[in-house]
Amino acid sequence: MTSTGVRPATDPEAYLRQTQDRRMASLFELLRIPSISALSAHAGDSRRAAQAIAADLRGIGMDHVEVAETGAHPVVYADWLHAEGAPTALVYCHYDVQPVDPLELWESPPFEPVVIDGRIVARGAADDKGQLHMHLRAIEALLATRGALPVNLKVLFEGDEESSADHLETWVGANRERLAADVGVVSDTGFFEGNLPAITVSTRGILYAQIDVLGPPTDLHSGAFGGAVENPAIALAHIIVGLKAVDGRILIPGFYDEVLPLTPDEHTAFSDLPFDDDAFRRETGVPALAGEPGYMTVERVAIRPTLDVNGMWAGFEGEGTKTIIPAHAHAKISCRLVPDQTPDATYERLEARVLELTPPGVSASVQMLGGGLPFRSKIDHPAMAAASRAVESAFGIAPLFTREGGSIPVLATLGRELQLPLVLLGFANPDDHAHAPNEGLVLDNYENGIRAIIHFWDELAVTDLAR
Amino acid sequence: MTSTGVRPATDPEAYLRQTQDRRMASLFELLRIPSISALSAHAGDSRRAAQAIAADLRGIGMDHVEVAETGAHPVVYADWLHAEGAPTALVYCHYDVQPVDPLELWESPPFEPVVIDGRIVARGAADDKGQLHMHLRAIEALLATRGALPVNLKVLFEGDEESSADHLETWVGANRERLAADVGVVSDTGFFEGNLPAITVSTRGILYAQIDVLGPPTDLHSGAFGGAVENPAIALAHIIVGLKAVDGRILIPGFYDEVLPLTPDEHTAFSDLPFDDDAFRRETGVPALAGEPGYMTVERVAIRPTLDVNGMWAGFEGEGTKTIIPAHAHAKISCRLVPDQTPDATYERLEARVLELTPPGVSASVQMLGGGLPFRSKIDHPAMAAASRAVESAFGIAPLFTREGGSIPVLATLGRELQLPLVLLGFANPDDHAHAPNEGLVLDNYENGIRAIIHFWDELAVTDLAR
Repeated sequence: MTSTGVRPATDPEAYLRQTQDRRMASLFELLRIPSISALSAHAGDSRRAAQAIAADLRGIGMDHVEVAETGAHPVVYADWLHAEGAPTALVYCHYDVQPVDPLELWESPPFEPVVIDGRIVARGAADDKGQLHMHLRAIEALLATRGALPVNLKVLFEGDEESSADHLETWVGANRERLAADVGVVSDTGFFEGNLPAITVSTRGILYAQIDVLGPPTDLHSGAFGGAVENPAIALAHIIVGLKAVDGRILIPGFYDEVLPLTPDEHTAFSDLPFDDDAFRRETGVPALAGEPGYMTVERVAIRPTLDVNGMWAGFEGEGTKTIIPAHAHAKISCRLVPDQTPDATYERLEARVLELTPPGVSASVQMLGGGLPFRSKIDHPAMAAASRAVESAFGIAPLFTREGGSIPVLATLGRELQLPLVLLGFANPDDHAHAPNEGLVLDNYENGIRAIIHFWDELAVTDLAR
Repeated sequence: MTSTGVRPATDPEAYLRQTQDRRMASLFELLRIPSISALSAHAGDSRRAAQAIAADLRGIGMDHVEVAETGAHPVVYADWLHAEGAPTALVYCHYDVQPVDPLELWESPPFEPVVIDGRIVARGAADDKGQLHMHLRAIEALLATRGALPVNLKVLFEGDEESSADHLETWVGANRERLAADVGVVSDTGFFEGNLPAITVSTRGILYAQIDVLGPPTDLHSGAFGGAVENPAIALAHIIVGLKAVDGRILIPGFYDEVLPLTPDEHTAFSDLPFDDDAFRRETGVPALAGEPGYMTVERVAIRPTLDVNGMWAGFEGEGTKTIIPAHAHAKISCRLVPDQTPDATYERLEARVLELTPPGVSASVQMLGGGLPFRSKIDHPAMAAASRAVESAFGIAPLFTREGGSIPVLATLGRELQLPLVLLGFANPDDHAHAPNEGLVLDNYENGIRAIIHFWDELAVTDLAR
């Protein structure tokens, strides 16, 4: 597996320096497979990606490599368990990617990877095939030079992260013993604004619901009936306003009951983050930021719960005029949740509040469309310190501990099903356009990230995980 | 023009009794023409209807019959001006009809008229070809038996009432002298609930506007940005709630300034109307009626102004979930106006209120999509008393003076351009399904309506209009 005419490398760093071209070719090959999990037309591509990863794992020396069926796209499992007495880590990444529309906004074809201005540009470069590939190459460099890994390793690469969490949850539940480990490592997050090295220590959960307001069985003439019949769209507006005050506070009784308060230390940590409100505002393009009183922007998007209307519709949306009282009105709403809120309890409180706010001239109901628990790392866990040292060693700067506003449902799955402490060791840059056109990954993040992973396994080998 | 073998009738009533079959055949012929003004595919049918009406007018002895171009569908004009010293009346009806969808809900084809359970069922039977035809047959009966009309008569039958008011307004403005009269008679309204004879004495005006709320230039991820960015859909909800209180009062400063207060007599008149709130509620299908405090339902839908959301949309409306903060949110809203409110002043106040209610994190604008002035008859005008006597004489019961919640823009046009007092002499029944499937006209209303028109001309001839 070494280049001809070059003396075999004897340490991982030398190996990585010798194999950069081959490594990039291998990454591009993986990025070329359009493994879009949400589109059934690409099911064959997803399977092809899984099989390519499995072949790679076999080639670099992993054991028990399996492309395992889940009912949806397969998972890829492999392990290497010969580091007697050392800890065992379970690595999670996903090989599926988001759809590519709007295609016309891509400056290069999404499945024809290129390096532009120091960025590997392709769908999946950052989220998450690029990060998955870093783990493959870290394992390769260790096994090729030392013949062994410093820790016991299990890898779990799934293909449904961008479409549905159900199949993985079932599969993990059915494979608890096989997946048992001392620590879980998830590489699907990223650095802080300005591409500053960071380790994510929390993500928000989510409740997604739909409010349906029903008035008359059919649209009514607004001339003949206007003034005497409740307007479902106006009733919905009153309900929404009763859920969230204009200053951003959420008005659902009990909503904040389980929210863990921010400690003074945490507030200080947030204050110390190099977060630029004005740069953030410019990024969003809004005339002014807004949000809950008493919190900084960086807190509002990370450790405070939210309520947003994601969609809303009623009556006539066409050109011109139509003089009706709409028969019904609807809103999709979602709450981002923080520890220790739960989707189920939040749903119950939301439903009670909506019913309380519904005027007598209409009826309303609330259906739950989805939910995910918030996640918080055990910051004091020794694996966190090991990860921090590894990132600092590879990137030359100690990582920030940051909070993610979005939701990663798999974290709750792994935490709950496997009872694992999780380290979120991710290398994407906030500017990487994940889920958007021109997704990319900073080439230096990719290269140094492989080093960070190797350092992390070395650090973990000498860490007392105090099981 | 008389039936063979029957002695010619010497008075209109005898004439009408002798000619019922022929009259019904003529009505059906007119109803069979699908003169749908809003659909350009039916432009030829509209012209055919205009020509058929013109031929009818010539046949019964009217002068100066003309199918006049307007730029849209033609108007039909005719006159008979030989009643020296008698008042001159201008009759307005329209020969165009609404589209027929949903076609599958019609129990008989919309352009194949039939009489079912005492109702003439066809599109346009009530609104408004049936009422137009009543005027033709009243003129015929008078000229055929007396050789003269008791008053000078001008008829103006238009073909764009259901699509646009602009072309008629221009044509009327250009033909002011030709259309000059002492009184205008509009037959495009109807009776009270329960088919009780009624003369409409007011209609509401309208302001139709659209509110556009703009947030970020593109949808934002609700995880990454939720909590720090104003949600345009929630901002729109706050704006709507700031326009109308949950109890139905409109919160736009100055909105009610020009509303003429209800006099105690008017309130008593409304109280005396045989209006059944519960029957009205059942008709709408809502769980409970609603509306402005301090007014009866029959007042709320007739002489109080309203504000309704006719349509509303933002963000994601599809199946399932999409975790976005929508880039923009929109609402179509309309206000029904009462004397002396105007669309223009109401628009200005609405716009100022919306801007005042707009939170700093978004921008909002209001565009006016349409407007029409409210209309109120001169109830004390001697022509009103003449009309009342005529209806009572034909139907055996004195008509109620009622208010219409909807808007009839042509009333303002005729009133303003021609400076005419208007009598709204209409014969539809509230159950006639105008604009809806299975439109019909009560056969007795049609027959007695022709008598009422004849009585009205006779009454008007001996009325001092005190010009």
